[in-house]
Amino acid sequence: MGSIADELTSILGPGKVLRDEATLAVYAVDQAPVVDYRLPAAVVLAESIDDVQATVKACAARNVPLVPRGAGTGVSGGAHASDGCIVLGLERMNRILKINADDETAVVEPGVINADLNDAAAAHGLMFAPDPASFRISTIGGNVATNAGGLRCAKYGVTRDSVLALDVVLADGSLLHTGHQTFKGVAGYDLTGLFVGSEGTLGIVVGATVRLKYLPREVHTIAAFYPDFRQAAAGVLAVGKARVQPAIMELLDGGSLAQLDELHGSDLASRGAALLLVQTDGFGAAAEADVVRKVLAAGGAVVTTETSAEAEQLVELRRNSRGVEVDDEYRVGEDVAVPRSRLVDYVAALEALAEVHDVSLKVVAHAGDGNLHPTFWIDRVNDVVDAGALRRLNTALDASIVAALEMGGTITGEHGVGQYKLRWLGLEQPEPLRQLQRRVKDLFDPSGILNPGKAI
Amino acid sequence: MGSIADELTSILGPGKVLRDEATLAVYAVDQAPVVDYRLPAAVVLAESIDDVQATVKACAARNVPLVPRGAGTGVSGGAHASDGCIVLGLERMNRILKINADDETAVVEPGVINADLNDAAAAHGLMFAPDPASFRISTIGGNVATNAGGLRCAKYGVTRDSVLALDVVLADGSLLHTGHQTFKGVAGYDLTGLFVGSEGTLGIVVGATVRLKYLPREVHTIAAFYPDFRQAAAGVLAVGKARVQPAIMELLDGGSLAQLDELHGSDLASRGAALLLVQTDGFGAAAEADVVRKVLAAGGAVVTTETSAEAEQLVELRRNSRGVEVDDEYRVGEDVAVPRSRLVDYVAALEALAEVHDVSLKVVAHAGDGNLHPTFWIDRVNDVVDAGALRRLNTALDASIVAALEMGGTITGEHGVGQYKLRWLGLEQPEPLRQLQRRVKDLFDPSGILNPGKAI
Repeated sequence: MGSIADELTSILGPGKVLRDEATLAVYAVDQAPVVDYRLPAAVVLAESIDDVQATVKACAARNVPLVPRGAGTGVSGGAHASDGCIVLGLERMNRILKINADDETAVVEPGVINADLNDAAAAHGLMFAPDPASFRISTIGGNVATNAGGLRCAKYGVTRDSVLALDVVLADGSLLHTGHQTFKGVAGYDLTGLFVGSEGTLGIVVGATVRLKYLPREVHTIAAFYPDFRQAAAGVLAVGKARVQPAIMELLDGGSLAQLDELHGSDLASRGAALLLVQTDGFGAAAEADVVRKVLAAGGAVVTTETSAEAEQLVELRRNSRGVEVDDEYRVGEDVAVPRSRLVDYVAALEALAEVHDVSLKVVAHAGDGNLHPTFWIDRVNDVVDAGALRRLNTALDASIVAALEMGGTITGEHGVGQYKLRWLGLEQPEPLRQLQRRVKDLFDPSGILNPGKAI
Repeated sequence: MGSIADELTSILGPGKVLRDEATLAVYAVDQAPVVDYRLPAAVVLAESIDDVQATVKACAARNVPLVPRGAGTGVSGGAHASDGCIVLGLERMNRILKINADDETAVVEPGVINADLNDAAAAHGLMFAPDPASFRISTIGGNVATNAGGLRCAKYGVTRDSVLALDVVLADGSLLHTGHQTFKGVAGYDLTGLFVGSEGTLGIVVGATVRLKYLPREVHTIAAFYPDFRQAAAGVLAVGKARVQPAIMELLDGGSLAQLDELHGSDLASRGAALLLVQTDGFGAAAEADVVRKVLAAGGAVVTTETSAEAEQLVELRRNSRGVEVDDEYRVGEDVAVPRSRLVDYVAALEALAEVHDVSLKVVAHAGDGNLHPTFWIDRVNDVVDAGALRRLNTALDASIVAALEMGGTITGEHGVGQYKLRWLGLEQPEPLRQLQRRVKDLFDPSGILNPGKAI
């Protein structure tokens, strides 16, 4: 009997099974920090559900681990390879099978790029609401695997809220269809919801029926600069108290503004120590924007008189700020969420941690839902790794996670646990809850071949 | 060893364990058709999580089935008693433990009445979005158990979309906390979503953290009368095509209008053969209502010039139409959902079925999400049961379910499978999917004591 790679090559043909070193290295990791670098035995680029089923069956027969992968844009290591695994790439299954404009649904293969679905939907005045920062390159399958969020989910919901039905290849290679084609449906258990966010550990999503929402015709964007971050965070609560539900409410601190200035030649940092970007949309966008401007100004903001279009450019800057990190620093970043009322306290706690551990801090937050992306960083002074600096960063990071949990928060608002955050999961979830999840995992995947060591 | 009722009385005290015939009869059934009338051994009215845990442990030790129950307003028999079971009523656990106005969340016991939570939230400009017709008397726990819908879920989501965290007593009596206090959170599997809609078959919900939405300050209501039902159904799609998302979009046919007239002395039936009620809300309500009026008029509707307040009364009539059925007819009703684009076809299919089987038809629909409540009925001419009439009704009913499934629909949009709809579940879900759900059930409840014979 040859290797699993040989067998898969003979089943699927050589064009779908890649084994060269360069490819293996590319598919060994996603965009998360690497804690345990491993090379896959081969990369399968499936082109059909049949390909996926054949791959899973071959792996099941030999007990070879399988790591499903979309575009590899995850930042928690959910697609990091296990030693000798098969990475099952779904990027070639990228057809939008149907857009049902009257039903306001779409049926897609898992490798469809989020932005491509949005472009196709926009032709009908519709949109796929989840908009992770990676939306231009990430796949719907990956969005489903991580239950991806984004900027506009306080108003439009996370990925789970847009998924009606799934086609899933189970650990034995069989194909399961869950959910319903209708907006509402309560027949049986919500297995669809169980698969969403399970990071490929319960089954491999090979198709999805998603609900589309209405593309707003009118959008108003407001940029509010503040003398300090805490006041800006208080502005978030003030908008909430005015009972306005913005589509986007992004909070950037001074460090983030300075970084944007450096990257784009803007002069944001000179205008304030914190920026709150608020976007309202829909038929009430103008009226909502008026209320937002008023309450933010009353809270000490300089609400700029720039046009909505200029403010929209700021949103674009914010949207695209990920992945352009500067290379002359050490940094660690996270994805906690806290109850909205604790935003101010949490930012204060972060600032205190940065000071105690002598590290720098920058924070951006999807403030509408209390989801923060703080980054602790230290300038890299030369090419020698500064072990003390890294230790201080990681100590501050661990403490920031604990602080979020103490405020009733979660270790991950939208990125997923993957491999990287497993070390903190026990702080959030007590053993009986984790044990129950392991039993669910065992039920779906008794041999443990589906993305082992991830998510739970 | 005494009976389970004796044991529970000695553990909990006599005030919480009811055994008189009259009480047993009341708690033997919910509001669904009764297919298999059984009396419980006793009714436990729990007052605390401890009470629930003690009850479950006692039942588990003796392998006695447990039927959890909120207000008993379900219409699928999810709370019908099993023979010799303990009905575990949660109505006394009715405290709103906390309203976090800034976080826009509430923490409630399961027996809190939906309307009571809404009243308490309204004081903060907030609302609990799920609004089943029974909202004045149904409990949050029951809403969670059935993943209840209502009138405004096309815009605001179903119960699942408003539940952030649950406290659940498992089949062994242990207490589990799932979910998160934040709007977003993706740590581990979505067990919260798995419990929602599981009808008490996986665990007993003893607490919930729910997300509250903004109570809209402005509401506009439009009443559009049509010469026939199909044109009214087409109006639903026209509103969708205009990319307006109403809060409420209710469709009533001539039979339903005649019934409302009979009950309330109105003269709706004289104004058209079908009524489409559309309610827009929020900052854009007026602008949206303008668009809705325009597209409905263009589609052949007589859009009444009555004030929004008068139209709102019609919504109230519609909202309260359940539970006031007239007693001089035989009737069977259902809760299917179809993709919105098939609404017109499905109504045509229902009309054809009514004609073929010589029965009358009336239909109301939560048209915004394709969820229909058709009723087939026959006048009751005397007190003798007309077996032929009942047969014709049930044949039409079964055929209406099949027709919905053929159009890509589901057997239940919001009422749940309970006991009553189990006979149709196999038509919607193939055996491997059902088998997987049975295995999930076995994992959570290996002895099968939690609400046996329901949901799956």
